[in-house]
Amino acid sequence: MSEERDKVELEEGTLLTAISENNMDQFREIFLEQHPYDQAKFFVKLEGHDRLIVYHFLSPEEMAAVFENIEDEDDQYETYLSEMDPTFAAQMLAQMYADDAVDVLNELDKDQVANYLTIMEDGAAEEIRELLHYEEYTAGSIMTTEYIAIHANQTVHSAMQILKNEAPNAETIYYVFVIDEDKKLVGVISLRDLIINEPDTMISEIMNERVYSVTVAVDQEEVARKMKDYNFLALPVVDFRDHLLGIITVDDIVDVIDEEASEDYSRLAAVSDVDSQDRGPFSAAKSRLPWLIILLFLGMFTASLIGRFEETLDKVAMLAVFIPLIAGMAGNTGTQALAVAVRRISVGDTQDQTLGKLIIREAGTGVITGTICGIVVTLVVFIWQGDIFLGTLVGISILATLIVATIAGAFIPLIMHRLKVDPAVASGPFITTINDILSILIYFGLATLFMQYLI
Amino acid sequence: MSEERDKVELEEGTLLTAISENNMDQFREIFLEQHPYDQAKFFVKLEGHDRLIVYHFLSPEEMAAVFENIEDEDDQYETYLSEMDPTFAAQMLAQMYADDAVDVLNELDKDQVANYLTIMEDGAAEEIRELLHYEEYTAGSIMTTEYIAIHANQTVHSAMQILKNEAPNAETIYYVFVIDEDKKLVGVISLRDLIINEPDTMISEIMNERVYSVTVAVDQEEVARKMKDYNFLALPVVDFRDHLLGIITVDDIVDVIDEEASEDYSRLAAVSDVDSQDRGPFSAAKSRLPWLIILLFLGMFTASLIGRFEETLDKVAMLAVFIPLIAGMAGNTGTQALAVAVRRISVGDTQDQTLGKLIIREAGTGVITGTICGIVVTLVVFIWQGDIFLGTLVGISILATLIVATIAGAFIPLIMHRLKVDPAVASGPFITTINDILSILIYFGLATLFMQYLI
Repeated sequence: MSEERDKVELEEGTLLTAISENNMDQFREIFLEQHPYDQAKFFVKLEGHDRLIVYHFLSPEEMAAVFENIEDEDDQYETYLSEMDPTFAAQMLAQMYADDAVDVLNELDKDQVANYLTIMEDGAAEEIRELLHYEEYTAGSIMTTEYIAIHANQTVHSAMQILKNEAPNAETIYYVFVIDEDKKLVGVISLRDLIINEPDTMISEIMNERVYSVTVAVDQEEVARKMKDYNFLALPVVDFRDHLLGIITVDDIVDVIDEEASEDYSRLAAVSDVDSQDRGPFSAAKSRLPWLIILLFLGMFTASLIGRFEETLDKVAMLAVFIPLIAGMAGNTGTQALAVAVRRISVGDTQDQTLGKLIIREAGTGVITGTICGIVVTLVVFIWQGDIFLGTLVGISILATLIVATIAGAFIPLIMHRLKVDPAVASGPFITTINDILSILIYFGLATLFMQYLI
Repeated sequence: MSEERDKVELEEGTLLTAISENNMDQFREIFLEQHPYDQAKFFVKLEGHDRLIVYHFLSPEEMAAVFENIEDEDDQYETYLSEMDPTFAAQMLAQMYADDAVDVLNELDKDQVANYLTIMEDGAAEEIRELLHYEEYTAGSIMTTEYIAIHANQTVHSAMQILKNEAPNAETIYYVFVIDEDKKLVGVISLRDLIINEPDTMISEIMNERVYSVTVAVDQEEVARKMKDYNFLALPVVDFRDHLLGIITVDDIVDVIDEEASEDYSRLAAVSDVDSQDRGPFSAAKSRLPWLIILLFLGMFTASLIGRFEETLDKVAMLAVFIPLIAGMAGNTGTQALAVAVRRISVGDTQDQTLGKLIIREAGTGVITGTICGIVVTLVVFIWQGDIFLGTLVGISILATLIVATIAGAFIPLIMHRLKVDPAVASGPFITTINDILSILIYFGLATLFMQYLI
């Protein structure tokens, strides 16, 4: 692989020279040999004036392959399209797989979209218009209409003929879907089965009638999970009356899995996903500040709580020393429990019974970790400060804190899930701050209660 | 889809009855119609005595399909295999795709593996033995040897004949790899191309000579990234002299992406990945305690730091009130910066220049968020406590803390990456605790320095 990559990097210089010398033949000879992903990587690195030359070197169809492979974080679709001749742009969009064209058009405003669709050839425009309807993050929004469908009363031979004709345009030819006269999905057959069976076999005899499908409005995360579990290379999308509308291919699902995981990850750390991309400090600060300000006010609330115990603090200033330790441990265990619960929910284990068991398990885990950490702390504080009562106070606070924080860490995302809020928004810092508050209440509550032993 | 799932759930009852009545025909009629993933889900829920009956109902080949679809978290391979007749078990392992069989055998001890390989038919044993050599998490460990290879001097027609013969055993037939007499990889051709071209076309004319491959020892994460970027359905694996050894298929890569993302996620929260699975509180506590104990001692260190400022604290007990706020904000911004840096590294943006830019960007972000949060805090504390100096002290501490914590959050994972340590092990709680310490030093340092204004 690295060999191929090295070659691609070597070719970059030659391609740039070809552009600057306006040498179309040399450019095409090298560029069209490259994988479209490498083509896209090269294209997005170009300056504006060089891009203009590339549009003239390539056909709309060739440019479509480049566009299909531009990664989301590099997207400047609007700029690129505005640089192109509108007819060229419309032809290119028509040549792209419909789902990819829709991704591009979703970045533009409505007027621009309407303009391109007007210039475009009717069939392609119609396909794209249908897909533009579906809401983001649903099966409909990631499906393509370029699938191959046949009828059950055909033979393997005639199915293979259809397949040969449609292969250049279909996004996948490895599954062929079987529909009835009403366009209802009745079966599926893989290309593997078509090849193994005799040419005169009827499709109805060999097709698989137990065909898994998803309805258009289903969340893309659910689609991804099913495709991963069942190892499908493509999954048909139907409306609520089982009419075949499109298919979702595995390459789109790989992207979904990656995006969703990175979304959960970013939320655990309270950063928006946009932030991991290459933006300046202002946009990074803008995306993080809302969280920080919320956390700041929660922190002020914690401070006001401690303020209420000022009298206790005045008497035994030493108490303050253990605040970060206790609050920190509460935050740590809470984050651990949170991560486990969010993960559990996101892999789809959401039966009441399973979640009930999870809470009980977390409570048990809190008791065990709390007991052990509590004993360790008691001993360390006793040895360090020579004060067994202070040690016991801190130790018992840790025990109580860890139990409460672990349960809270698991319970809050579950409640959010029940309230149909995505539990991943209960980010680590949020849980940490909630647990700060709980731990301070426990610690100073106990200290105030047993003040006479401390002085 | 839900329809299919509903049907599968309905069938469960009938299958259980068939088992209890020892009705093999009824069981097979329903069970063999199901998708292997559903079969596996049903199988792992069975009690031991019911499983024994299932082994008698199914052929080794049918059982192999079930085994291939058992998910890692449900694995009790050792138990299952020990329940089977050894010859049946060996036959089943031989029927499985070699990469899946190796996954199962990796759970057993060496003696057991040797036993099964001895009973097994030679060809299959040889294949498995080869794959067992490769280290975990490398391309070699997830590849399979069941690919289809042809020579360049064949025609499309003869290639299709080979494909038809090998289709039942190959893990994918959608890519055919072209090798020379030395078994060196020289090209690739997709089934799509074979179908589109005329039967008498030579493979050498239509094959793609720019074939991307990976070497056996490459990390599986790198393989996953390439397959995702290039949308490959399969990727050939070669040795360092370009001999074709096996292929990796997209379904295995989907699992890798999911695992790696979930690993990063778990580490951010300082839980081991095992923990998200269904284990009891003792094993959960056991996996979390090491982290908690380390964090506990770091927390004790923080406490001892505050202890050094006991004199300052004794004079102005009010200072203690803001400890959790300042330490908390440091932890939050640090975690944000950490998540961004880890994510950046894990998507492979690891050129020095990019990472240098990241640090500068994070510093800028820290200055902006610090300034805004600092001003907000100063105002709130002034209004609340009526003490402009205390407000300014807390505000400046927040400013300094946010800058330092943001840089630390980004810098520590980068240093770890440079030292070839996986930066994801610098979990959120670890960074949080480091930042607790830095923030306490800043806050109490400033307070002690300007003590005269506070009293």
